[in-house]
Amino acid sequence: MFGNKGDTSCSGVAFSRDEVTGAPKPSGDFLVNAQGEDVVSGVRNPRDLAEMGDVMPDAHAELLGILETLEAHYKDMQDTEFTVEEGVLYMLQTRNAKRPAQAAVRFAVDAVSEELLTRAEALDTIDAGGLDALLHPTFAPDTEFEVLARGVAASPGAAKGQIVFTPDDAVDWAQRGRKVILVRAFTEADDVHGFFAAQGILTAEGGKASHAALVARGMGKPCVAGASALRVDLERHLLRVGDVVLREGDTIAIDGSRGLVSSDDVPLTEPQVDPNFDTVLGWADELRRLGVRANADTPKDARRAREFGAEGIGLCRTEHMFMAADRQPKMQAMIMAESGENRRAALAELLPLQQEDFEGLFEEMVDLPVTIRLLDPPLHEFLPNAEDLAVELERARHERPRDVRRLERTLDRVRQLEETNPMLGTRGARLGIIAPEIYDVQVEAIVAAARVVRERLGKTPQIEIMLPLVAYEQEVAILRARVEHVIAEMDAEDLRPLIGTMIELPRACFVADRIAMEADFFSFGTNDLTQTALGLSRDDVESGFLTHYLEQRILDRSPFETIDQPGVGWLVRLAAWVGREAKPELKLGICGEHGGDPDSIAFFHMAGLDYVSCSPYRVPIARVAAAQAALRADGGPAGSASF
Amino acid sequence: MFGNKGDTSCSGVAFSRDEVTGAPKPSGDFLVNAQGEDVVSGVRNPRDLAEMGDVMPDAHAELLGILETLEAHYKDMQDTEFTVEEGVLYMLQTRNAKRPAQAAVRFAVDAVSEELLTRAEALDTIDAGGLDALLHPTFAPDTEFEVLARGVAASPGAAKGQIVFTPDDAVDWAQRGRKVILVRAFTEADDVHGFFAAQGILTAEGGKASHAALVARGMGKPCVAGASALRVDLERHLLRVGDVVLREGDTIAIDGSRGLVSSDDVPLTEPQVDPNFDTVLGWADELRRLGVRANADTPKDARRAREFGAEGIGLCRTEHMFMAADRQPKMQAMIMAESGENRRAALAELLPLQQEDFEGLFEEMVDLPVTIRLLDPPLHEFLPNAEDLAVELERARHERPRDVRRLERTLDRVRQLEETNPMLGTRGARLGIIAPEIYDVQVEAIVAAARVVRERLGKTPQIEIMLPLVAYEQEVAILRARVEHVIAEMDAEDLRPLIGTMIELPRACFVADRIAMEADFFSFGTNDLTQTALGLSRDDVESGFLTHYLEQRILDRSPFETIDQPGVGWLVRLAAWVGREAKPELKLGICGEHGGDPDSIAFFHMAGLDYVSCSPYRVPIARVAAAQAALRADGGPAGSASF
Repeated sequence: MFGNKGDTSCSGVAFSRDEVTGAPKPSGDFLVNAQGEDVVSGVRNPRDLAEMGDVMPDAHAELLGILETLEAHYKDMQDTEFTVEEGVLYMLQTRNAKRPAQAAVRFAVDAVSEELLTRAEALDTIDAGGLDALLHPTFAPDTEFEVLARGVAASPGAAKGQIVFTPDDAVDWAQRGRKVILVRAFTEADDVHGFFAAQGILTAEGGKASHAALVARGMGKPCVAGASALRVDLERHLLRVGDVVLREGDTIAIDGSRGLVSSDDVPLTEPQVDPNFDTVLGWADELRRLGVRANADTPKDARRAREFGAEGIGLCRTEHMFMAADRQPKMQAMIMAESGENRRAALAELLPLQQEDFEGLFEEMVDLPVTIRLLDPPLHEFLPNAEDLAVELERARHERPRDVRRLERTLDRVRQLEETNPMLGTRGARLGIIAPEIYDVQVEAIVAAARVVRERLGKTPQIEIMLPLVAYEQEVAILRARVEHVIAEMDAEDLRPLIGTMIELPRACFVADRIAMEADFFSFGTNDLTQTALGLSRDDVESGFLTHYLEQRILDRSPFETIDQPGVGWLVRLAAWVGREAKPELKLGICGEHGGDPDSIAFFHMAGLDYVSCSPYRVPIARVAAAQAALRADGGPAGSASF
Repeated sequence: MFGNKGDTSCSGVAFSRDEVTGAPKPSGDFLVNAQGEDVVSGVRNPRDLAEMGDVMPDAHAELLGILETLEAHYKDMQDTEFTVEEGVLYMLQTRNAKRPAQAAVRFAVDAVSEELLTRAEALDTIDAGGLDALLHPTFAPDTEFEVLARGVAASPGAAKGQIVFTPDDAVDWAQRGRKVILVRAFTEADDVHGFFAAQGILTAEGGKASHAALVARGMGKPCVAGASALRVDLERHLLRVGDVVLREGDTIAIDGSRGLVSSDDVPLTEPQVDPNFDTVLGWADELRRLGVRANADTPKDARRAREFGAEGIGLCRTEHMFMAADRQPKMQAMIMAESGENRRAALAELLPLQQEDFEGLFEEMVDLPVTIRLLDPPLHEFLPNAEDLAVELERARHERPRDVRRLERTLDRVRQLEETNPMLGTRGARLGIIAPEIYDVQVEAIVAAARVVRERLGKTPQIEIMLPLVAYEQEVAILRARVEHVIAEMDAEDLRPLIGTMIELPRACFVADRIAMEADFFSFGTNDLTQTALGLSRDDVESGFLTHYLEQRILDRSPFETIDQPGVGWLVRLAAWVGREAKPELKLGICGEHGGDPDSIAFFHMAGLDYVSCSPYRVPIARVAAAQAALRADGGPAGSASF
């Protein structure tokens, strides 16, 4: 079964520790009578390294000793290639192991307790981006399941769903409320709409750099790629693995962190707390200079963010509060109002609801700052879509004539507010300037909520009011004066809220010194800054030409994932520089999605920002990445040996 | 009739030359028994200065002498205020006269021939922006017409049309093919859609800085503001001036260069060639460093541009060629094509039509450069609108079931191509990367046309092929290689076309050094650069919040009219600088609408560009503005006394 004991040749890959868990037990694969290439290509099915002890015990023992030496020398877990010919062990190559997050974290903690590394050195061995895997759903631990096939761990996280074979089916099924896994021989640019609809992606061909892998990672969808045992029969809508046949609609589960596929109904678990990870996060907090906040719009998100170690809310998007089902009709009434009076009345109904939301946030975030962005999106986002309305109107003309007038009126207003490029239209500070009563009511709700919470908890919320989409310093001056006026009218100066602005337009970066004179803080909105600096509408390009650009290597990562340093990065640096020059005490943060990306975090550290703010789930990643940025900026962990 | 000859007091405004024509004959108004304020406010009806000779001949003669002295001293036509008390003339104030273009041009020419000024000094007295008036329609000269009312010359040009009293009526009437003049007591932000629909605007209240004046100038629409004799009766839809009553639909004519209103059917003339203007333009051409080209898409535009003195085409927008009625179906067939083969076939039908267009342009522009921009707009601009299609489909379901399938298919494709923010979507170079066959065919058409014209005229067209909406240097490298490949395939290297790019995204400015290595020229697309740097969609904001911003003095001019120096201007300077640093021979131009705005032209001169390109009608303005920029940059006209 294990080949002849007398075999004198084999080749293999060995890790100095368990490659999945990081436990201090060597692991790896080997092939008898084979070249190293065969091992790497995966053409043949390799055996577990432990079995090598049976096949060639001497070489095996020697290998384990060498692995220990290498690890001690390189101060990191090792991933080596070896070959044994006529009983003689040859080490072909060694490198620091790329390994799953769990293993990386465990290695770091063990290495420190074994005194192999300092904390700073240990922290530096971790791939912060990979920690994602610890924060995604996984197959429930200790669950028994049969591995149907193995592939490349192409995008982390586990997913489960019904099999579909085409992107269009993925979209259709998802629209009918089903959870689906998109299974393809390989994927192409045309398939991307199916990615959005699917829980995860499984392909028979391709590796970590395949289209499926690139796009899935970009979207944060689990993906197993290159599961070569799969035979996809697109015509009959079925999938063969050996003699197992799965059909469209059958359930399948994939683990993109480990490259596993199962046809069992494997239970998924939400990310678990890993005590090693907590240890590492503790070190990170001691080492980092950058603060880490979270983007959270609800008390629930705020609680989760705090659990993950967020030091405040860097962005609360108040529009989500107006989108909730019970509020949208009131918001619509406000927008449809024909007089200032009616508008004011509709807003008055929204005030207590907003106040409630703010109370919840302030309570969850007691003693920590809460940055509230005043309404940003264009008003038409709160109204029904013009095309749907037009079709409904056409139908009503045939079937429900008495609805015609009402529909016509709504459609008129929608048309009036409609914009060709809403991203560049009447939103943010512009809305605040032309319809100031909206911001007035928001500020009233903030003040009222802060008073209630102060009364209830005996602590004053740390409020930061943020003005979105500013291009001109006069916008900030006008709106700041208005906010201060509302606060003064309510006799609430004792709340001492900060008033600052988003910096998310190129022009704002060029005049950041002038804006700084009117603002207590800047928060870089790198999503919109990327959209404007690069001229890319995120909504349009991520499923469109961006894929072509990744394929043709014009880009190696989406600029919405990792900050574009030459363009967007320059603008951030410029604004930070001239803003601080004008006002040295200016507080600087960033609240785009780049706030959770390790490479971007390193950049923000160098740019001198005070904090990053990211989605609650990415807060731990940001904490580690911020610490690494601090270490590396100071000349690498070697420079921090005293830690 | 002229008051008592014995009157010993009067006040007035006098010009050293005729204020309208610039002829060397003093002009002005005066009021007997009045203060200067009465004259300026226009409360009373003043008399012509010539009549002063009858009323108080001594003071009149003295005044004329003083005017001559003042003009000689200040080296410019003078606009003075005076008062006569008890027979003694007091000069209250004098300043260089702001005067109509015709007068300004004539003064400049006369002043040079009178040896009062050098050419450079004379050129410097002209308000280049005001020359616009020489390029707009005017009331036909020597036409007899009755002046119904006078107001402020708020926006130059003459217009004639039927009276409407509301912006909605303006839109409705215009949609039915009528030419209308929008008449209002005053205008507000909500009225702006009516401005777009009207030929001109007439208001009873407000002056040069009123809403109506600001917006009309921004749009280039003639406007007479503050014609205080007008009584607008909005309820009865009529207009009274004294005892004259005009009703909705009656014809009215306005001259926004002179502030005149007439109810006569005054014939309008297209701008006339003014020999003085030609003289001034000749000086300008000798003095300026900046080249002046025109944006022209058709042979007709090209011819006009050349007549106005354009030195080439700086921007030919090829999309207009695909929009023509006979071509749109072919373009749609190309977009709807389901295979590359069908697409290629549809494009093949478009090729000879494009070639014809290019032949015409090359012929008109023989010996001058022609910059052809490859297709820029997103493909959905060539398809019908989704909302219209959806409504048609809904109707077809009831009335024409056999059309349903075709409509469904078109709607599907439209939906697929639809974008949330088309300005920031799949267009320009992005289109070239993902659908390269479109650019291939365009280059083939350019090459074929150039050969035909070379054959016909014995001269090789000076072709500049321009890639739009570039953000990454790799885009230019890939597309340049593709263009060169097509040229090589056609054995057309001897045409030696330049291949360059638009610079119209902030990122492109930051990496302009890298882009320069792949490009023979840059042409700044300041329209799109303004849209991205300021985060403003021109389509959405000009009739929207921009008006509020002008009213609240956040802006003093639309950034689409005069370049925003702190933001957009910096980007232009940056790109010009680093681009030239990387490639000193890099040719730099600008083809946004700012290319026709004098203040922006001065900026482009300082930024070191080689040429500006503007609409054909603005070419003469650009020539004068470019000369003034050169004069002023060299320390003012005094420094050019040798000219």
